[in-house]
Amino acid sequence: MAFGYAASMRAQPGKRDDVIKILLSGLDGLRQAGCSVYAVSVEDEDPDMIRIYEVWESAEHHTASLQLPETKAAIATAMPMLTGEFTARHGTVVGGLGVGGLGVA
Amino acid sequence: MAFGYAASMRAQPGKRDDVIKILLSGLDGLRQAGCSVYAVSVEDEDPDMIRIYEVWESAEHHTASLQLPETKAAIATAMPMLTGEFTARHGTVVGGLGVGGLGVA
Repeated sequence: MAFGYAASMRAQPGKRDDVIKILLSGLDGLRQAGCSVYAVSVEDEDPDMIRIYEVWESAEHHTASLQLPETKAAIATAMPMLTGEFTARHGTVVGGLGVGGLGVA
Repeated sequence: MAFGYAASMRAQPGKRDDVIKILLSGLDGLRQAGCSVYAVSVEDEDPDMIRIYEVWESAEHHTASLQLPETKAAIATAMPMLTGEFTARHGTVVGGLGVGGLGVA
């Protein structure tokens, strides 16, 4: 079953867009690693907050992606621009639109 | 800019999968209404909880979709199977993978 992952991270004041650039720099690698959705969003009410929603072919694909050199490099580059406030939640994607080969739509 | 929407709803005990069937019954209509991602997920730790992550072309597309007859019918059918515990959050999707025509990937 597909793996859904929702994370939030707080950027240092003024650094949000720099972090987003890093997050969006490796999209082709994510697709090849089994990611079908990687949505980076911001909120007017909280200008330092970054939220990411991801759908992966499996939890194992997601875990393996964290070992990719480019992922490790991106995390290392972004870390100093983050406050350390981080949340994450995961679940099983049972169906939907645009969620990859789930045989639904 | 694309509109990201994350919602959670608690089903009555034993009704989760019936609600999910309703949620997944209108996917073609959602795509035509401007939705590029509609991911329905469940969690082992909380068997009555349903989470949905959506990406729409705009907030207006999302709002308009709630007026569609099939959306209204689906909500009316599902409501008795829900406890009323509902959360929602929204933001602006600035880029990513599988998030529709954002000109990124």
